[in-house]
Amino acid sequence: MTKDAAASLGVFDSGLGGLTVVRALARSLPHEGVTYFGDTARVPYGNKSARTVSRLSLEAMRFLEHFGVKALVVACNSASALAMDALRREAAVPVVGVVEAGAEAAAAATRNGTVGVIGPRATVGSGCYDRELARLRPGTTVVSNPCPLFVPLVEEGWTDEAVTRSVAERYLEPLRVAGVDTVILGCTHYPLLADVIGEVMGEGVRLIDSGEAVAATVGALLEREGIAAGGSAPAVRRYFVSDQADRFSAEARRFLGDLAADGARAVDQSDLPWYDRPWLDDPTKGQA
Amino acid sequence: MTKDAAASLGVFDSGLGGLTVVRALARSLPHEGVTYFGDTARVPYGNKSARTVSRLSLEAMRFLEHFGVKALVVACNSASALAMDALRREAAVPVVGVVEAGAEAAAAATRNGTVGVIGPRATVGSGCYDRELARLRPGTTVVSNPCPLFVPLVEEGWTDEAVTRSVAERYLEPLRVAGVDTVILGCTHYPLLADVIGEVMGEGVRLIDSGEAVAATVGALLEREGIAAGGSAPAVRRYFVSDQADRFSAEARRFLGDLAADGARAVDQSDLPWYDRPWLDDPTKGQA
Repeated sequence: MTKDAAASLGVFDSGLGGLTVVRALARSLPHEGVTYFGDTARVPYGNKSARTVSRLSLEAMRFLEHFGVKALVVACNSASALAMDALRREAAVPVVGVVEAGAEAAAAATRNGTVGVIGPRATVGSGCYDRELARLRPGTTVVSNPCPLFVPLVEEGWTDEAVTRSVAERYLEPLRVAGVDTVILGCTHYPLLADVIGEVMGEGVRLIDSGEAVAATVGALLEREGIAAGGSAPAVRRYFVSDQADRFSAEARRFLGDLAADGARAVDQSDLPWYDRPWLDDPTKGQA
Repeated sequence: MTKDAAASLGVFDSGLGGLTVVRALARSLPHEGVTYFGDTARVPYGNKSARTVSRLSLEAMRFLEHFGVKALVVACNSASALAMDALRREAAVPVVGVVEAGAEAAAAATRNGTVGVIGPRATVGSGCYDRELARLRPGTTVVSNPCPLFVPLVEEGWTDEAVTRSVAERYLEPLRVAGVDTVILGCTHYPLLADVIGEVMGEGVRLIDSGEAVAATVGALLEREGIAAGGSAPAVRRYFVSDQADRFSAEARRFLGDLAADGARAVDQSDLPWYDRPWLDDPTKGQA
């Protein structure tokens, strides 16, 4: 990796949801190139352990390192919740995560000091937003609830259905009862449910889109480090996925909106001999 | 692998849902040992490509080969739909899949020749049940619908909720309209929703649990090949998972019911250098 203004930003996610971060980056930093990796062969990360999420995240980072990225943007909430320490320990460039950025935006937005957090089970269970908010704005009350059905509802395309509203009402009930005035959308898919979530939470409740928050953080970082891209050439964005590259263009549109993406290149992950270890000879190899 | 009556059955699934197959095996073949692998580090398979599902399935088979299993049971519907040819090409022992077994049971059960199939998107989209039913019972009308929200609803524990009934009514509508008299539960999680599905479909509609169907197929195979286990010693069942071994016992109970499982051993999959390939040097390495 390199501190080169002309280098691209490395962005990774467990799948395609992180493209909402790419869209936010393209809007606020239109001259920055992006090299994106979506780990679609192993999506989702939200139901995996901290150890496995860290391993997968380090692998994604090592892949992006080959492109000489000047900063690493962790678009995946689960990775941002569970793998930031491991990534920063190994990274040669600055690492920015959606969790820190989202917490910062929420700390600045809340008036009554009561913030709601929704996300996948791994993200919410890690307590990452609680810790960040306690650091950024001591005394903040955090009310969180995992919403594992939101991603499949978005993937089903049911963003505007009665059943989605029922699920949202149920998931958001503890946040409403607690009177939060700000809700962190702790998953890259959730901005697509912003209308339903906003309706259920009611007027005056601010929704924090981590994509927009992280774009602001990245912009400030690039300025501070003096590695913001010049505006002469159009920004190049290239996309890699570990599975289903043929479905990328169609699915990417949902997250990228009007931002064009020609396609993604497939990344082969077939070279792992884990299954070839001497399990029978050494029973201590596998531990509960 | 070996044709040894004393050897265990190798069973694999993308996660823990395949334990419903282990339960069915334990009930109908109580003397058979089982070596189970749940690929919880990469679950689910249902949203992956045929190529990736085949690769992951072959890796699981190679892992189980180390235990000298006498037959391979593919408990995962997606693997059974997409990887059977690849597995049979490479396997040294018989391979039995839930799809073939479920189709066989449905072909025998239907009276009016109209069969419903529900499952993950990859399973339904592959048309595997349609092909099997056309072969086993020519002229059968198959009406299928993917139900991607069923697994997260089961994982949420919402097996008996109004929202689950709404989702089921919506997913099952085309099957009801077509007047199916038999429904294949094409996913290991769906038997846990059998009550709701049965209520929505109405009386007289038979639900096919692939776990029970595959247990019957395996029993017949073992007899035919003369490798059924003797009844002298108690059957040993051992469990391996690629992530979250610490959560296995608690979660396994949901699928295993009264069948005890002490715990699972963790299988490490960290030895893959896919990210270390010369991507920059050879752009043809990644292809859309």
